[in-house]
This record gives sequence, structure tokens and C-alpha cells, in this order.
Amino acid sequence: MKETYRFQHKHILGIEQLSVADILHILDTAISFKEISNRSIKKVPTLKGKTIINFFFEPSTRTRLSFEIAAKRMSADTFGITAATSSAKKGETLIDTACNLQAMNPDLIIIRHGSSGAPGLLTRHIDASIINAGDGTHQHPSQALLDMMTIREHKGSIDGLKIALIGDIAHSRVAHSNILGFTKMGADVKVAGPATFMIPHLDLLGARVCSTVEEAIADADVVMALRIQKERQNDPLIPSLREYARFYGINRSRLKHAKPDALIMHPGPINRGVEMDPDVADGKGSVILEQVTNGVAVRMALLYLVLGQEGGRAE
Amino acid sequence: MKETYRFQHKHILGIEQLSVADILHILDTAISFKEISNRSIKKVPTLKGKTIINFFFEPSTRTRLSFEIAAKRMSADTFGITAATSSAKKGETLIDTACNLQAMNPDLIIIRHGSSGAPGLLTRHIDASIINAGDGTHQHPSQALLDMMTIREHKGSIDGLKIALIGDIAHSRVAHSNILGFTKMGADVKVAGPATFMIPHLDLLGARVCSTVEEAIADADVVMALRIQKERQNDPLIPSLREYARFYGINRSRLKHAKPDALIMHPGPINRGVEMDPDVADGKGSVILEQVTNGVAVRMALLYLVLGQEGGRAE
Amino acid sequence: MKETYRFQHKHILGIEQLSVADILHILDTAISFKEISNRSIKKVPTLKGKTIINFFFEPSTRTRLSFEIAAKRMSADTFGITAATSSAKKGETLIDTACNLQAMNPDLIIIRHGSSGAPGLLTRHIDASIINAGDGTHQHPSQALLDMMTIREHKGSIDGLKIALIGDIAHSRVAHSNILGFTKMGADVKVAGPATFMIPHLDLLGARVCSTVEEAIADADVVMALRIQKERQNDPLIPSLREYARFYGINRSRLKHAKPDALIMHPGPINRGVEMDPDVADGKGSVILEQVTNGVAVRMALLYLVLGQEGGRAE
Repeated sequence: MKETYRFQHKHILGIEQLSVADILHILDTAISFKEISNRSIKKVPTLKGKTIINFFFEPSTRTRLSFEIAAKRMSADTFGITAATSSAKKGETLIDTACNLQAMNPDLIIIRHGSSGAPGLLTRHIDASIINAGDGTHQHPSQALLDMMTIREHKGSIDGLKIALIGDIAHSRVAHSNILGFTKMGADVKVAGPATFMIPHLDLLGARVCSTVEEAIADADVVMALRIQKERQNDPLIPSLREYARFYGINRSRLKHAKPDALIMHPGPINRGVEMDPDVADGKGSVILEQVTNGVAVRMALLYLVLGQEGGRAE
Repeated sequence: MKETYRFQHKHILGIEQLSVADILHILDTAISFKEISNRSIKKVPTLKGKTIINFFFEPSTRTRLSFEIAAKRMSADTFGITAATSSAKKGETLIDTACNLQAMNPDLIIIRHGSSGAPGLLTRHIDASIINAGDGTHQHPSQALLDMMTIREHKGSIDGLKIALIGDIAHSRVAHSNILGFTKMGADVKVAGPATFMIPHLDLLGARVCSTVEEAIADADVVMALRIQKERQNDPLIPSLREYARFYGINRSRLKHAKPDALIMHPGPINRGVEMDPDVADGKGSVILEQVTNGVAVRMALLYLVLGQEGGRAE
Repeated sequence: MKETYRFQHKHILGIEQLSVADILHILDTAISFKEISNRSIKKVPTLKGKTIINFFFEPSTRTRLSFEIAAKRMSADTFGITAATSSAKKGETLIDTACNLQAMNPDLIIIRHGSSGAPGLLTRHIDASIINAGDGTHQHPSQALLDMMTIREHKGSIDGLKIALIGDIAHSRVAHSNILGFTKMGADVKVAGPATFMIPHLDLLGARVCSTVEEAIADADVVMALRIQKERQNDPLIPSLREYARFYGINRSRLKHAKPDALIMHPGPINRGVEMDPDVADGKGSVILEQVTNGVAVRMALLYLVLGQEGGRAE
């Protein structure tokens, strides 16, 4: 079976499209690329002459930069478009903008967009590969993959782990991609947060909703706090940040319920003292910055897999 | 004559500076470069080590990106400055900013500016080559060249064609460059649009003003709709977009007056349902996205011709 | 002694950290790199595969572009972050943002920040080299080095020169770095400007405060006007720009007090007619644009010295 495996995806839109074998192949590829970023000369010629467009409709430091660093370390040419500079300002539709980009023969468009489903929509209109770098409250697959890579490096496997996600499940594309990924890889996923941050039928995604943080993190191998997505809420769903921190913030006292060697994770950027106490973010078990390092490696793997072996893909 | 022809221009400011031989040479060069963008490795070393500055005072997706893609596919180094990040905010004059750029030894500055004549002004103060990427209501020569390339690919030659330009002639630098180019190449150019969008003495440029769209596109080989340049008007020159669409929008019914194989063109971004119906923009004869593809090829040719053969230019 | 000299600095935070030997070594290196920018192919492979992040919290044309051009002419990969696109908007602290950047394994972060000391703070939290591209009212060391390079090219040496700095000493990081550098290299530095632009104990930095511009520039070899740092003042410290120009602006009449061959300098961007008359800025003795040219060379030298010879640094 292993001998005949072939990565077949032209686009990376969400975790549900990936099989367990796909995910393991991406993570293995990422591990093999990781050391490039530690070299004195951080550059391989793999994607020389490829045109990659970063098409970001929402502000982003780490994801945009992570993809751009990944691309340039593979020797691709990168081009950036933000909502502020794009023709969206001139009233052009998303599809027209995308078709215009396509006409310039890019190999790959990496898109972040405020509307769930925007990256999937583009795949129906253009020929280039698409990677979803976050769409509305839908998914952020490269984030889930870097999280899985980080957990796997520390725990060997994701299968059988107890993983707790705390916070704003409803508005978090990171949560959606992670719940799909973790359960697919065999983990037991529990979530907790204010009722306004939960969505009905979360169990359909494979996660169990707990009524307290303590219950969710009981005996957990991994505790992941999510960001309060302030910019994605239309009305105040929580009474105050202070009250949120008191009932749902991850602190040392609460962490006593988890396994002693539990990993502490956060997709960043952290609201310190809200989702997580500083001594937890910076302390024992925290792998928050390793997540960022692995982000570059996972994205190098994704770029390579969708672009670097064109002959091998059955389209 | 052909043997002794030499491209002699250091700057590309407008179409009037180019001879018929120059235009044909640019278009031939562009055709020879076009296939590079279809390669798996979209990169040639021609302009390696050249410094190209994109100096954009107005927002732009396609033109800025098109030049940047053209430059990187030729292996040049590109640098971007926008009005938002430039020292214009600190009260510096355009000439001082340009002289400061010049002091960093760029080979080429590509400039878009809201004031007609700004690129020409710069040529009197700096040594680098200048390409006008759109100045006020004056000219946008690379757009006219990509339009001519597209027409030539479909019709073989521009000479003798009937070309209709519909819409905002007065405020459109695209229209000005195209009228100059099309008439120079031997086409018969007619224009139509609201009276407030016409300029006196358009006939001096070589175009005939028609009183209706139907008259302008009668028997036309090419129908080009122009964008409503909303951001460039100080007061409302048209009663409403709806009325504009009714009297001047290109639709299937109106197109019956043109030749059956007429090309449909638009410089983009399109205001769908205003200048053009969606079924026209996306339908038979439309070469709107080919215009964008040819834009990269024409810009590769321009960069090559002004930069790539320094020894051959008589300065 | 010369044989055993070695450049030992991982970071460039301010002039005070540099010895006279360091400064001479940087300037000699810059002179050797200067001709690269005059070549037809402006690129050497020295820093290929290095990751350099431009992290600019304040708008800048010339400094950001100068560093980026320097980096690409050395073949490094550059990445830009501005305050507008960074996670600072999402409430992340500077140190968290910096630690996240560090996690992506950059070799060098070039930072401009409104808070004095921000670059120094970062060196305590991250492993990459840091170059201060201007921090608050504190320092701007690469500017002082390019000024010293320019003076040295014209006068042979800085030792023994009479140098006048006119204007806003208190709010100018350029002034602070230059006073430290000029006095360290043996120059006699005099300053003049409105009392609200002076700081107590300027003599501790090595400069003598004069009560009139005429006194400061008497017999000067170099006259440097500083920019009115409008954006860095909280309240109006000068009655009007017109009055400032009258009492402190550099004009031909005032310049009669300086040496006939005095160099005229300004860090740019110039407020023409305020700090300096146009005929002075553009006239005899002005080396303002040479400063910009030397900026690229000095920054190439700094990048090379902090990055290009890792084996040789005793850390």
C-alpha cells in the first residue's frame, strides 16, 4: 500500500478532503523539509520559476509571512495582493479578480478571505492550485496540519490522545479544521467555552462539548486555547474579557486537571491574560512557538506537494 | 530597412513617441516572450541583477502585478512603493522623492500617478528608464500595446480594422493611448458615449465621434467598452449608472450592428451590467482575459527593450 | 593591531557600541561594495539563502527601500511587515510578535519603531541579528554611518572637522547618532536651533550648543540641517514654519559664515524653504543625494558584517 501511495490533491481547501494517509504524508514531508530553515543557506531550488500569489483579504502577519518564507525557501517567486490594494476597491467581483489573476498564469494562489467558501468557489473558475489560508469561520487547514505536526513530534502519534480545545469554537476556523483533523487521526476531542461560543451538533464533527473547562481538560494530553476572535463577532457574546479569563482562561491551577506532561498550544496571536496566563504561555509544556516554526515546514510541504510534482498528479 | 531597425527608446511615456516599426517590434518581441508564462519553470535570466521600482500612487491590482510578474519572470529584482508608504506623506515633492530613488541606482522606475505628465516630468530629473503605467487622464501606453497585441493575434493586422470605443473617453487614459495607437496602425476608430464624456477636437486624435453606440459599432471588427472612471470624476457627469447601462452598455442586441466575429474588449476591472452585460463579457468574441495574459507578455517585452540591450541604444 | 581586528557585533543598535576601528571597518567595507550598485548586473551572491525581515512600524520610503535594495543586491530574501498589516492590530505585544518572527528562523530583523529602545528590547528575546533602522527619538545608526561615509569621501577624514547640526536636536534620532559618531571620530560638533529643540546636557554627548545658527556654522566644514520632525511632536514647539525658516533655515547668506567648501547635508525628506532654501539643497557643496547613494552601500556593509561571516564572530 505504501509503495503505491500518491498525493493527489491540486487544492488544499479543508481537512475533510485529506485521508489519514494524506495527512501522514504531508507531515512526513514537512519533517523532511524542516531542517532547511536551520541551515546557514536556507534555500533549495525545488520551486524555482513557480509563480505564487498571496491573496489576503484580512490582515495577517504570521500566516502570510509563513507562506511567503516557505515559498522563497523553495525558490518560488511570490506576489502579494491585499484587499487595500486590490481592485475590490473598484467594485470588481471576487471571481473577476480571480480570473484576472489566472490570466497571468500563476501556479498557485494562497487565499485568505472573510467569507466561508471563497477558496472553494475560486477552484471552480480558475486553473491554478488554491490553498485556503483561512476562510471566514470555515477552515484553516495549514494551521491544523502544523498543529498535528507539533503534537506528533512530541507524542509520536495523535491516535488515542485526549485533546481539549477551549474557547470560541463557533467563530474559529482553526477549531473547525483541528476538530476534523484530530478526530480523523484518532484523537478524543473535548471542547469547552461560553455557550455563545458553541455550535449545535458539534458532536457531528466528532467533538464532545463539556460544561466546564476542568471537565474538558481532565487527563488531557494536549490543551489548546483559541483566540477570542473579537474582529469576527458582530455583537458582544461575552460579558467581559475579565470574566472570560476567570471562567475559561488557561492558568496553572486549572492545568492540574490535565496530564502533567500536557502540551500547551495556541494558534496566536495571544491575548495574554485572557485566553491564557503568561506563565502558562511561556512555561512548561508550551509549544506555541514550535507551532510557528512547524508552520513554515508544513507550508513548504504543501507547496511542494501541490506544485512540485506535476507529472505525478492524476487530474 | 528591417535589418537596420533598432529600438531606441529609453522611456515609454506614451504612444505618440512610438513609430509603426517600434510598435510592431514591441508586439513581435511580446509574442516571442509569451510562451515563457506557459512553461513549468516560468523564468529566464535575461534581466538578472536589474533593479526595478514599482512606484504606484493609485491603487492597482492588475497593472502593478502584471509588471511585477513580468519583471520576476525575467529575473529582475523588484521593489514596491505606494503612496501610503512613501515620503509623500511627509510632505516631500515628487521630484525630490524621484531623485532620492535615483540615488539608489535603479535601472527602471514604473510609475502610476494621478497627475497627467508626472512620468514625463521625472525623465527630466533622473537617469533611470521610466515606464508610464498610467498618468492621470493622459496615457497608459502598455495597456494600448497589449490591446493591439490581442487584436493582432486574432485579426492578423490592425490596419484597416473598424474599432469602436464606447464610454468615458474624456477621463480615460486607456482611450487616449488606444486612439493614438489604433489610428497610427491604420485602423478606423469611432467613439460614442455621453456628451459629458467626450472631449472637443477628438478628431485631432484621429477618432470620429458618433452620436449613438449603434452608429459607432456599425460593422465594427472590435468593440471596446471603457470603464466608468468613477474615482476620477469630481462631479456626477452621468444621471445614473442604470441610465448609462441603458444607453451605452454593450449588450447582445446592440452587438448585432457589429461584425459577427467582432472582438469584445474591456481594460478591466468591469462594472458588470453597467458598461457591459455579463453574457457579453463572458461570451462569444470576448478576449478580455486574453488582454490580461498579453499584458504580462507586452510588459516583459518593454522591460527587455528598455533595459536588456543597453549596448544597443543610442543615447 | 590591524591584522587582528575582527568585527564582533551581532546587532547594530546604536553608535555608542561601535569603536573607532569598527566604524572605519564598516566605512571601508561600504566603499568596497559601492561599485556593485553601478554595475550593469547589480547583484552578488554573498547573502544567498539568508532571510531578512523588514519590520517597519513607521512609514518610510528611503530607509526601508535602501535596506531592501542592499539586501537583494547581496542576494538575500527579504520580507516586509508594516504596522498596518501586522498582528499589532490584533492586540499582540511587540515581544510576542518578535518571538513569532524568530520562530520562522530569520537571520536578521531590521526594525523601525516609534518607541526608543524597542530594537534593544528585542535582542533580549530573539536569536536573529537586529539592526535598528530608527527607534523613537533615540538612534538611527545606519544614517550616521552613511553621513560619516559621505563626509569621509569628500574630506578624507572626520578627525578635526568642524560640523554644525541645525534644527530639532531633541526629537532627532539622526542628530543623536551623528553627534555620537562625529565626536567619536574626532570632530568638533556645534548645534543650534530653537530652545524647545535643545536638550539639557547636550555637552555630555560631546556637542556645544550655540545661541545662533551663525555661531554654530562659523568656519564649519560640514553644515547639516535636520528635518522638522512634525509627526514626532505632541504640541507646537515652534511658533510657525515661516518663523523657523527665518531664524534657522539654511540659506546662502547664512552659509557665508561657513568654510567656502563646506558640505551641505540633510537626512531627508526635505521640507524645502523651511530647513533649507532650494538653492542650497540643490547647489554648491550639497551632497544630499550622495548620502542616499552611500546609504545603500553602508547597509550592504552592515548586512554583510552581521550576517556574512558567521564563523568569524565570537559569540
